[in-house]
Amino acid sequence: MPREITAYSNPLIKRIRSLREKKHRREEGLFLAEGLRILTEARENGRIPEYLFYSREGAGHPLVRTLIFDVEDSGGQAIETVPDILSKLSGKDNPQAVVGVFAEFAGALGVLDRTSADIWLVAERLRDPGNLGTILRTGDAVGAGGLILIGECVDPFSVEAVRASMGALFTVPVVMAEWSEFLPWLRSGPGQLVGLSLDTENDYRAAKYDAPTFLLTGNEAQGMPAEMAAECDLLVKIPMLGKADSLNAAVATAVMAYEVLAQRRG
Amino acid sequence: MPREITAYSNPLIKRIRSLREKKHRREEGLFLAEGLRILTEARENGRIPEYLFYSREGAGHPLVRTLIFDVEDSGGQAIETVPDILSKLSGKDNPQAVVGVFAEFAGALGVLDRTSADIWLVAERLRDPGNLGTILRTGDAVGAGGLILIGECVDPFSVEAVRASMGALFTVPVVMAEWSEFLPWLRSGPGQLVGLSLDTENDYRAAKYDAPTFLLTGNEAQGMPAEMAAECDLLVKIPMLGKADSLNAAVATAVMAYEVLAQRRG
Repeated sequence: MPREITAYSNPLIKRIRSLREKKHRREEGLFLAEGLRILTEARENGRIPEYLFYSREGAGHPLVRTLIFDVEDSGGQAIETVPDILSKLSGKDNPQAVVGVFAEFAGALGVLDRTSADIWLVAERLRDPGNLGTILRTGDAVGAGGLILIGECVDPFSVEAVRASMGALFTVPVVMAEWSEFLPWLRSGPGQLVGLSLDTENDYRAAKYDAPTFLLTGNEAQGMPAEMAAECDLLVKIPMLGKADSLNAAVATAVMAYEVLAQRRG
Repeated sequence: MPREITAYSNPLIKRIRSLREKKHRREEGLFLAEGLRILTEARENGRIPEYLFYSREGAGHPLVRTLIFDVEDSGGQAIETVPDILSKLSGKDNPQAVVGVFAEFAGALGVLDRTSADIWLVAERLRDPGNLGTILRTGDAVGAGGLILIGECVDPFSVEAVRASMGALFTVPVVMAEWSEFLPWLRSGPGQLVGLSLDTENDYRAAKYDAPTFLLTGNEAQGMPAEMAAECDLLVKIPMLGKADSLNAAVATAVMAYEVLAQRRG
């Protein structure tokens, strides 16, 4: 039976709101996702929230009713609340109709099946949550097997990353690994490691990509370290005609990923 | 002679800080840009701030000294201040070494020379400042003639848009126009209007683009209205293999723009 919470001082609300901070996410193993579109995407991929918050108005929507049913059926809690509390949970002035709290589920390299996809995305020291979410969204679109985050990256379960992913967090496997783990894993099977770089003359459109292709994007400000570039099977450059010397990291990843996809599609 | 401000209660600091809001930007005709990289980009494109704020530590950098000289030479004010005030002005915990206050400079359709570039970017009802800045950055990279913003778009002079543009706001002309002005202007000369759409079978890689190409990207959530799509000379679709039905708007614009660029380069 759904319960109702209308007081912002309720301890559960305070606890859920604390999940906006990484420290609390790690302690609880939980994260926030908001909006009917993203929660429906999650549900279609078998991810049901532990807690579901919705407003009385939102409960009129058939998809919200479906979510409420599934949450209760799986032993979670569906909680009716007021728009003001939904706002507080999501950190947005215009609260989405629903906010879900999910168990974190990052995978490990060992469970990835590299033969399951032709394109894999790899990002090292990615700092911007919007870029991370956008890269996941692109990963979904190009049919990537997963996103492998190397080193100190922004948390893929941050509210901003989940939001920018538009649900792709639930469709594209995410793995966090150190370079020292990733490289031996990569070399234990087939896979071409392609690095985006400014220090090469290889045009990304002229290069030939072999499946599975692992596209490596470096840190937003610094690019990738020389020792990583040295391990790449191929370094490629996206031409830049302007006065700036770099593209946004999510844009560069997407331009590359769509070129690889175009070659696959012939 | 540079002056010094160390009190947050100083009226000029309050006034400059208010430029973080659109209303005040419009009233003053001024906007904020931060960071040595962006201000140096501005300077190289002939844009000198009206006010320049820097810390004592920052003043040791040769590029900051050059900026101070140029600002004073052009009748502006160079103001030494403390890191805490720089933080307050930029809204960031780690303040950039410099914050500049520039006069707004959006252009008009009438001053654009469409023969000056093969690619032009057009966005309608773009809502996210990060997307706007990222599209400007891509525009710089592909050598776009400018970015034309149609209808109610986010302000290109917002702090977030300027930051995401990484200086491209100063290198890529920006024009704000209504569709009812844009369309007659477009049809008064050569130009292929290409719309990104989900409702077409034309693959973006199979299409042929004629210069100058005007790439039209619709609103993040809704895409473009049917009446705009109907005016396009060509609608194209970027394939999406995943479960989501759209790409980030800045990503989609970049994938398209790089395809047009590749065709131009042969």
